[in-house]
Amino acid sequence: MDNFIKENERLEDLGIKGLKIIQNPDYFCFGIDAVLLSWFASSAVHRKTRVIDLGTGTGIIPLLLYGRTGAQKIQALEIQENMVEMAGRSVACNGLEEKIEIIHGDIKNPGEQVRPTSYDVVVSNPPYMKVGHGLKNPMETKAIARHEILCGIEDVVIFAKRMLKDRGKLFLIHRADRLADIMSVMREHRVEPKRLQFIHPYLDKPANLVLVEGMKAGKPYLITEAPIVVYEKDGRYTQTINDIYGTPEPYDRIIENKTAPEQ
Amino acid sequence: MDNFIKENERLEDLGIKGLKIIQNPDYFCFGIDAVLLSWFASSAVHRKTRVIDLGTGTGIIPLLLYGRTGAQKIQALEIQENMVEMAGRSVACNGLEEKIEIIHGDIKNPGEQVRPTSYDVVVSNPPYMKVGHGLKNPMETKAIARHEILCGIEDVVIFAKRMLKDRGKLFLIHRADRLADIMSVMREHRVEPKRLQFIHPYLDKPANLVLVEGMKAGKPYLITEAPIVVYEKDGRYTQTINDIYGTPEPYDRIIENKTAPEQ
Repeated sequence: MDNFIKENERLEDLGIKGLKIIQNPDYFCFGIDAVLLSWFASSAVHRKTRVIDLGTGTGIIPLLLYGRTGAQKIQALEIQENMVEMAGRSVACNGLEEKIEIIHGDIKNPGEQVRPTSYDVVVSNPPYMKVGHGLKNPMETKAIARHEILCGIEDVVIFAKRMLKDRGKLFLIHRADRLADIMSVMREHRVEPKRLQFIHPYLDKPANLVLVEGMKAGKPYLITEAPIVVYEKDGRYTQTINDIYGTPEPYDRIIENKTAPEQ
Repeated sequence: MDNFIKENERLEDLGIKGLKIIQNPDYFCFGIDAVLLSWFASSAVHRKTRVIDLGTGTGIIPLLLYGRTGAQKIQALEIQENMVEMAGRSVACNGLEEKIEIIHGDIKNPGEQVRPTSYDVVVSNPPYMKVGHGLKNPMETKAIARHEILCGIEDVVIFAKRMLKDRGKLFLIHRADRLADIMSVMREHRVEPKRLQFIHPYLDKPANLVLVEGMKAGKPYLITEAPIVVYEKDGRYTQTINDIYGTPEPYDRIIENKTAPEQ
C-alpha cells in the first residue's frame, strides 16, 4: 500500500467487504456520525440508485454506502483540494474508480458532472458549527469541515431541491439542537421531513445528533424512529451501535500508519 | 359526592393530593397525553405562574398542574358548553374555585377574562386529527375534542404568541407525525421550539407522541430530551410512566360510578 498512503496518514480497515480508508489526523477524520448516516441512508440505496454525497471529506460515506448497498454509481463532492486528493486515493486503493467519483467542487457551483434533477438520493454530513462559534482559522481544513463557512444547512437543502428527482430523498445528520433550523428550511424549500432518528449518548440523556430524511415534494407525514443509544451505562457501545458498525471493535484496525515520529 | 356527579359519569381519584375528577365515557375522557403534558409543563410552573390551558376538556390539566405545582391561578378555556359545565363541577368538588377558573370561550375569541401578553405559560393538548380523517359527526363532543374542527395547531400557536409575555412558554403535546407542521408554524410566529420529548410505546418502536416546549421570542436552541418509553416488553408500564403518574396503578381508582345499567 506504499503507493497509496503518504506521510502522517494511516490506512484503516472499514470492516465491511475488505474496504479501506486513508485518514490524516491533521485533517478532519470521520466519526460515528458518518457511520450512522451511511447506515440510515442505505435504506434508500440499491445497486442502481443515483447517489451524491455533499462534502465527502475523507470519502467515508461513499465507501460505506458502496459497502452496504453495492451502489454502482456514487458521486461525492468536496470543496477542499487536499481532501479530494486523499479521498481519491482511498477510492483507488479499493479499486473503486468505476463506482465512486470524487469531484472537486462547490455545493453552490458543482460543475457539469453534477446534473440537476438526476439523483435519487442526496447524502450530507455537513459542518455542524455556526460561523463565529470558537472559530480560529477559517481557512484551515478542519475549520471548513466543522463550521458553516462554505456550506450551511440551507445550502444543502437548496442543493437537494435542485439536484433530486421528484420524490428523491435527502439524508443528513446534524446536531440535534439545530433541528428547528433544519425542519423549517426543509419546509421552506419543499423538501418535506419524512423521518427522524435521534442519537442519544446514553438512554437517559438528551440527544446530541439527529438523522433526518426528507423527500423532495413529499407529503407531510413524519416518522420519528426508535432512538439510537450509543453507550451502555458502563461506557461500552450498545449492541445497536456494534450492529451498525458491523464489527465488534469499531474501525480501529489500523493497517498501516505513516505517522511521523514525534520531535 | 352525590351533588357533584350525574348519571353516566364517574368520579376518579387522581392519586395526587386527594384530587378527584369527573369523567363521562360519552364525552372525551383524558388519556396519558394529558398526564404527560402536565408533568412536562410543570417544570415552568410555580405558585405565582400565570397559566392558561387551551381546550381543557374535563379540566384534567389544570387539576394535575395545581396538584404538581400549587399554582394559585390557572385559567382553562373550553369551547364545548357540556365540558365546561362538567369541568366546573370537577373544580368545585375539589374546592378549587379560587385557584382554577374554567372559561367558556373560543380560542380565537376568548373573551375579556383572557388578557393579551399576561401569561407566563400556555398549555394545550389540542385535537390531533386533521378534519376529514375518519370524521363522522363534526358537531359531536368527541369529534370536536379529537379533530381540528375548531382548533388547529396554528390557532394554538397564534393564541400563545398573543397571550404570552415575552419569553413566556408554550407547552403542547401532539402526534409525533405532525412535528414538522408544529415546528414550522412555531417558527413562523416566533414561538421558538426549545425542548422536545418523544413518547415511544416501546423502546424499539417509533414515537407516537411528542411533547413540545416553545418560547415566545426565544433564541434558536433546541433540546431533545431522553425519550419516554411507555411500556416494558411485557406490556407493563415502565418505571418512568409510573413515576410520572405518581401511582403504581395509574388513575384507575374509581370512587363512584353512575354508569346506567346496560339494557
